[in-house]
Amino acid sequence: MRRKDLLDLRSADADEIKYVLDTAASFREVLRRPVKKVPTLRGKSVATLFFEPSTRTRTSFEAAAKILSADTYSLAGSTSSAVKGESLKDTMLTLDAMGIDAFVIRHSFSGAAELASRYVPGKPVINAGDGTHEHPTQGLLDLLTIRDVKGTLEGLEVAIVGDIQHSRVARSNLWGLHKMGAKVRLVGPSTLMPADAASLPVKVYTNLSEGLAGADVVNVLRIQLERQDSAYFPSTREYARLFGVNAEKLKVCNDDVTVLHPGPMNRGIEISSALADSSVSMITEQVTNGVAVRMATLFWLMGAASTS
Amino acid sequence: MRRKDLLDLRSADADEIKYVLDTAASFREVLRRPVKKVPTLRGKSVATLFFEPSTRTRTSFEAAAKILSADTYSLAGSTSSAVKGESLKDTMLTLDAMGIDAFVIRHSFSGAAELASRYVPGKPVINAGDGTHEHPTQGLLDLLTIRDVKGTLEGLEVAIVGDIQHSRVARSNLWGLHKMGAKVRLVGPSTLMPADAASLPVKVYTNLSEGLAGADVVNVLRIQLERQDSAYFPSTREYARLFGVNAEKLKVCNDDVTVLHPGPMNRGIEISSALADSSVSMITEQVTNGVAVRMATLFWLMGAASTS
Amino acid sequence: MRRKDLLDLRSADADEIKYVLDTAASFREVLRRPVKKVPTLRGKSVATLFFEPSTRTRTSFEAAAKILSADTYSLAGSTSSAVKGESLKDTMLTLDAMGIDAFVIRHSFSGAAELASRYVPGKPVINAGDGTHEHPTQGLLDLLTIRDVKGTLEGLEVAIVGDIQHSRVARSNLWGLHKMGAKVRLVGPSTLMPADAASLPVKVYTNLSEGLAGADVVNVLRIQLERQDSAYFPSTREYARLFGVNAEKLKVCNDDVTVLHPGPMNRGIEISSALADSSVSMITEQVTNGVAVRMATLFWLMGAASTS
Repeated sequence: MRRKDLLDLRSADADEIKYVLDTAASFREVLRRPVKKVPTLRGKSVATLFFEPSTRTRTSFEAAAKILSADTYSLAGSTSSAVKGESLKDTMLTLDAMGIDAFVIRHSFSGAAELASRYVPGKPVINAGDGTHEHPTQGLLDLLTIRDVKGTLEGLEVAIVGDIQHSRVARSNLWGLHKMGAKVRLVGPSTLMPADAASLPVKVYTNLSEGLAGADVVNVLRIQLERQDSAYFPSTREYARLFGVNAEKLKVCNDDVTVLHPGPMNRGIEISSALADSSVSMITEQVTNGVAVRMATLFWLMGAASTS
Repeated sequence: MRRKDLLDLRSADADEIKYVLDTAASFREVLRRPVKKVPTLRGKSVATLFFEPSTRTRTSFEAAAKILSADTYSLAGSTSSAVKGESLKDTMLTLDAMGIDAFVIRHSFSGAAELASRYVPGKPVINAGDGTHEHPTQGLLDLLTIRDVKGTLEGLEVAIVGDIQHSRVARSNLWGLHKMGAKVRLVGPSTLMPADAASLPVKVYTNLSEGLAGADVVNVLRIQLERQDSAYFPSTREYARLFGVNAEKLKVCNDDVTVLHPGPMNRGIEISSALADSSVSMITEQVTNGVAVRMATLFWLMGAASTS
Repeated sequence: MRRKDLLDLRSADADEIKYVLDTAASFREVLRRPVKKVPTLRGKSVATLFFEPSTRTRTSFEAAAKILSADTYSLAGSTSSAVKGESLKDTMLTLDAMGIDAFVIRHSFSGAAELASRYVPGKPVINAGDGTHEHPTQGLLDLLTIRDVKGTLEGLEVAIVGDIQHSRVARSNLWGLHKMGAKVRLVGPSTLMPADAASLPVKVYTNLSEGLAGADVVNVLRIQLERQDSAYFPSTREYARLFGVNAEKLKVCNDDVTVLHPGPMNRGIEISSALADSSVSMITEQVTNGVAVRMATLFWLMGAASTS
């Protein structure tokens, strides 16, 4: 069960995913202790390189690393040597030579994490979101959250709703869910469907009500407000009317439907505020599971490395 | 002596204030050790959320937390999800779900810390300055500094000089001093006096010399240079002439007068550089006491929580 | 072997330099351990004050401090009280009063680190680059890298190539190399030579081929791209043609020539990408030695202080 990196869920197999989910479930017990600290990665270091800003994901990885007793180094796009035009290659070679043990990378370029990984052949790289490609730990935390509620992923009908085309969250979800035996639906306006949708192991719906009918889980994606008035959709009001999810629209789902959102939410646009705060929403559970899944991922990739 | 939050000194009682000052005085001993580290909050986490920049206050809270062995997470306005429009509510719910144990918040909106507190019912929130409302740890460190020099707060004549209207430091000072039996004077141009001054337990002076006559302590506030040329005061030169404090103007005070300033100073405007560096100035003592008071506050709110 | 600060190598003597290099060489062993953590500076604190952005140097100092178990505080120019106009004096007095034990400063003003040092008479200040003056830990890590490869510094011919006039790296190198008995050549266009070159213990070359002839070591400086089209040089293309270093141009050097670059590199301008990645390049070794030299410097200045 060795792996150098976690770059995507498309290349992961069911055994690997099950291993991370099980490990995360056991690490979650540490998060409930009054003293949230285990010595697993003491004397190890984790650098977060965020070329796109994201407080929530960066803090989640930092918390995971610190609870495991690793030292953390935070390099943000705006304050990094990117200002001086240093290439990703030289940034990786430099941090490697400083003795950094693992790298968490977010970048607006699809494939950036894989590229970064090539420059540090002996060390783990975790993709924390690369362009419109993947965001595998988000996929894993969604899987863990669903498995907690439903007991299994096998055979579930999961609808992913929103801007599928630009969503790395959608992509990691669909691969992870597919590997674990769930049935995936992509639901959204046709202008926001990926060009390669037909080749993916999914069903595509451009009508919300049809896409939600009989669903066990609804994963609502964040709408990028800056896409409004572009060719993608006419207005947030129009989007909310047609694809915004609320309790009323969920009535076509199965009775015990579960709702996820990767955050940060645009309350009142892609999801109603009442639904976000209701008992079917697992949004805060997702956040807690995010720390646990990232602890499990760091342990998986770094713990293995440390004993080699 | 339990409390969830420290949002203001207006609602604090004398016993609570005395408890924090006494605890801070004992923590100050730790700051003098060669190894400045105690295990009190090991495995706990403190997030600083600064929606207004302040290196000095943020670093003081971080030092307090780290010396107590807590892990710290720093979320600044410019790099936070504020960029993506995440609401304060969702920021708090997210950090809570990640397992953050306590929150230190600075925000330009009066009442922001109280609002934040409602979203994390089981966890402490410390107000590190909200708009023009309060900055209670600054008030407490000023009280500690005065008590150290004078032996007591009871019966002292304390003049707070400057832009009272916009000053959360003034407001926390006046409530804290009032609770501990000191007599408070607000001194400044009438344009910079708060509208509700008549309802506060203070005397108001719009003439510096009258306001300083017989004072035991003078707490000089920072002038916001950006208010110059607004309706508030004509120019910094004019302000310095009429309300800038120096050794000459202090001659009307009591002989053993003590001078405070919350920093950062505009030397030569609200306070002369010579006075700031003189022996009556307790400005560096205030900074040291700031770390001790914040250690005491974290211990008070988090130590209690951890044993529950 | 006591010293309060490390502000430059011009005032360092050979015994001091040898002490740091030897200490760094022994600390390097810690960097190779699976658990990179020693308790040397536990309970001590190091603040990095970077008024100019530099991820690489700041992270290197932070890694050095954390591996020695010190707590670190990072204050960047843009987020610091510099925004509020706080003077360097008050910033230093404040951090001193908070109990910070050592200061690492980068500033665009030559002499800033020395100025800062005067405000904290009992505590170490390390210059991490001040204007065009010095960057002593960069000089030391270059010396260590050369000594590792060549066995000694005595008698070596070292060519420093590029924008000498604006380079604090060049200045720290030349003094360090001179103290240790190496012979220093400054090589670059006459427009980029310092006005005081004639008074320095160096030979000056304005022709690359002549400057490299018989050299044992070539230290290639970074070109500031923003100087292009100024009076200094006509274009990066022209600079690369005349002073860019590659394998072909190194043929006039001694056979076992070693190449250094302080980073971040402009590949294809001052150094060819192939040369940077070749076996004569010690660029990644320099980065590793940077952490070791900074550990040694912190140990030297803070370890001594802690036992006094």
